[in-house]
Amino acid sequence: MKFLQTIKVEEFKEILKAIPKIKIKEEIIPLEEAYNRVLFRDIISPIDVPHFRKSRMDGYAVIAEDTFLAEEDNLIEFELIETIPAGEKPYIKISKGQCSYVATGAAIPENADGVVMVEFTEKIEDQILISEAITPGTHIIEIGHDIQKEQIIVKKDRLIDLATLGILASCGIQEVTVYKKLKVGLISTGNELVSDSVKELDIGKIYDVNSIILKKAIENTGASVEFFGILKDDFNELKCVIDDALKYSDIVILSGGTSKGEGDLGPKVLEQYKDKEILVHGVRIKPGKPIIFTKFGDKIIFILPGYPTSALSCFYVFIDNFLRKNSGYPLKETYSKLFEVGERIYSTIGRHEFKTIKIQDVDGVKMIFPIKTGSEAISTMFYADGYIEIDELESIIEKGEKKRVYFF
Amino acid sequence: MKFLQTIKVEEFKEILKAIPKIKIKEEIIPLEEAYNRVLFRDIISPIDVPHFRKSRMDGYAVIAEDTFLAEEDNLIEFELIETIPAGEKPYIKISKGQCSYVATGAAIPENADGVVMVEFTEKIEDQILISEAITPGTHIIEIGHDIQKEQIIVKKDRLIDLATLGILASCGIQEVTVYKKLKVGLISTGNELVSDSVKELDIGKIYDVNSIILKKAIENTGASVEFFGILKDDFNELKCVIDDALKYSDIVILSGGTSKGEGDLGPKVLEQYKDKEILVHGVRIKPGKPIIFTKFGDKIIFILPGYPTSALSCFYVFIDNFLRKNSGYPLKETYSKLFEVGERIYSTIGRHEFKTIKIQDVDGVKMIFPIKTGSEAISTMFYADGYIEIDELESIIEKGEKKRVYFF
Repeated sequence: MKFLQTIKVEEFKEILKAIPKIKIKEEIIPLEEAYNRVLFRDIISPIDVPHFRKSRMDGYAVIAEDTFLAEEDNLIEFELIETIPAGEKPYIKISKGQCSYVATGAAIPENADGVVMVEFTEKIEDQILISEAITPGTHIIEIGHDIQKEQIIVKKDRLIDLATLGILASCGIQEVTVYKKLKVGLISTGNELVSDSVKELDIGKIYDVNSIILKKAIENTGASVEFFGILKDDFNELKCVIDDALKYSDIVILSGGTSKGEGDLGPKVLEQYKDKEILVHGVRIKPGKPIIFTKFGDKIIFILPGYPTSALSCFYVFIDNFLRKNSGYPLKETYSKLFEVGERIYSTIGRHEFKTIKIQDVDGVKMIFPIKTGSEAISTMFYADGYIEIDELESIIEKGEKKRVYFF
Repeated sequence: MKFLQTIKVEEFKEILKAIPKIKIKEEIIPLEEAYNRVLFRDIISPIDVPHFRKSRMDGYAVIAEDTFLAEEDNLIEFELIETIPAGEKPYIKISKGQCSYVATGAAIPENADGVVMVEFTEKIEDQILISEAITPGTHIIEIGHDIQKEQIIVKKDRLIDLATLGILASCGIQEVTVYKKLKVGLISTGNELVSDSVKELDIGKIYDVNSIILKKAIENTGASVEFFGILKDDFNELKCVIDDALKYSDIVILSGGTSKGEGDLGPKVLEQYKDKEILVHGVRIKPGKPIIFTKFGDKIIFILPGYPTSALSCFYVFIDNFLRKNSGYPLKETYSKLFEVGERIYSTIGRHEFKTIKIQDVDGVKMIFPIKTGSEAISTMFYADGYIEIDELESIIEKGEKKRVYFF
């Protein structure tokens, strides 16, 4: 296995785009747990909304025809026969010359076909004087005005946002069929890594950071994450855990173990699988050159670099939207803006560099400055505002040049 | 209590801005649960990161001075005394003329002060031939290069994002002190409302939508929500539950019961409190004119309109960022863009209207069209792409005018 067969950023993006969406099964969940899930099938309304004629205003429900001659100087008298608050059933049918008080949202009594707003009426005991002529339908919300029974209200594959929750709740839908969450198995590898339960770090050891940050980053794409632990660089152990992870997961993401150094077993383990289809041995980027991407049947494995700053930046550039696509989530658009470079920036020829930068104010002008530490330092990411992309063939960005900054 | 004392949108926004941040206590939680929480105090690193000198490259750790004369045509011979993989402790001190193999990330042995990359070496059994002169410090990551012990690594009031999780994890921090979540008590009111557990809707009844959508909208601001149920328009019951909610919550949000109709008890109940300080009886907006905002000591109550579309739009315009501010979350910026109006739009004089609209393509030009249903329909929000703001004094927006669309 050679790492020299590396490809360009754009080639890797094209390969990822061409992979068909992973087929995911459905599950039924309560509506209150459905926020940010994706609908597996069209939703048909079981009811009309509203399912009764209701008033848009506080006023008097009448037979509209009875008001036709009403004017400010020709008040027409109606007999008040019922008061219908919101939520109550009307009991009395309206006849000629009669009216019922209806609150906003209250049901319209039988026979009434219009509502005169309270503002155009005067009440004298049980007599209501009306000063406005209305046409049939005035201030009445008809049955099914909002949603019609049997209508498809939400189409499959829609992400359930607040408006979708609202429209489903208004139809009384309690359970929905959604796609199961994409299952991602996460593995950290490296003899140097220890979990945060270790209080005293030995010389040579460092705390595992990727397990916590990649877990959250993956969950943000709509997927569920199972963490398979921090593994030593041991061929058999790694093979065994990858086998396990492949069984459980749709996608396995492993971090660490992709550099050329000794003890980097990830690629060697993947070589052992018979039905592998290794698509990418390395992408010419910095930081984090050696990403590996392998299809086992319909399963996919990514190997990310071990340094957290590299792992997370590779994740954002390549994997984030790949997972979102497979979760049925809208793709993430990176906010970007042009700024002037405030100091010369060096880059490595032959690798497309994602250079973390800070925006600083110089005499009132916002300018780009490189972060001095590299991908080996977690603080690089912490202090950065975003990154600029530097082409494979560029080695120096001069002060004063304009570059596009992509914000985290 | 009169609703005529209404104020303008901008006045209400100013009042909200002037309210001091609610004081919230702290709690200690595990780091893995700390994502999207806000730090209560500065975090000081308990360790140096790295806490040992490590190699930036795969190569040979040497005393730099020993390489000073090395060149491509003047190979210098070193004795290989140890191989140090990442994660292992070096056991042998380097002496003059000796070297140890170090993997990327491995600890540098005592006395060594530089690393020669593998590319500039040749290995013949236990002899290493070096063809490059290096200066002291080459390819060595010094102790504390990333983070220094006792250094403040993250300042209080910072939202814990992925980079923050990463920097905390790299210091081995397992628990953090964060602000407790802002507690919001949520109440739905209205005789017409029933929960989704009711299978058959009676005439006059509708499903409660606000409880589910406002709950999620509030949770998105970083707050926790306790739902106090759907209440009938009963003075004593409402008073009793508001009392309860005030005890539990920092902020109470009630929906329904702010129109002028009968049976709207929210405002009447608030009138009963002795230490109330009703700041706003109504805001001249459409939809959802009558928002009420009351301070009881350091507690705050908002009454939102009952229609879900109105409630959610009032929430977004006024309350969303108010809650975010109190949760220590970054404020939400609404994405907006100018478009041409595709058809005449009517508005009500005297109220600042947030008109929901759709963007439609007309001969290749994206144009604004009003949504035909109003705030009474949940589908209004569902089918809208965003809204335009129409000033109190405007009654007609002509086709062809340019308006700014705010996207949801």
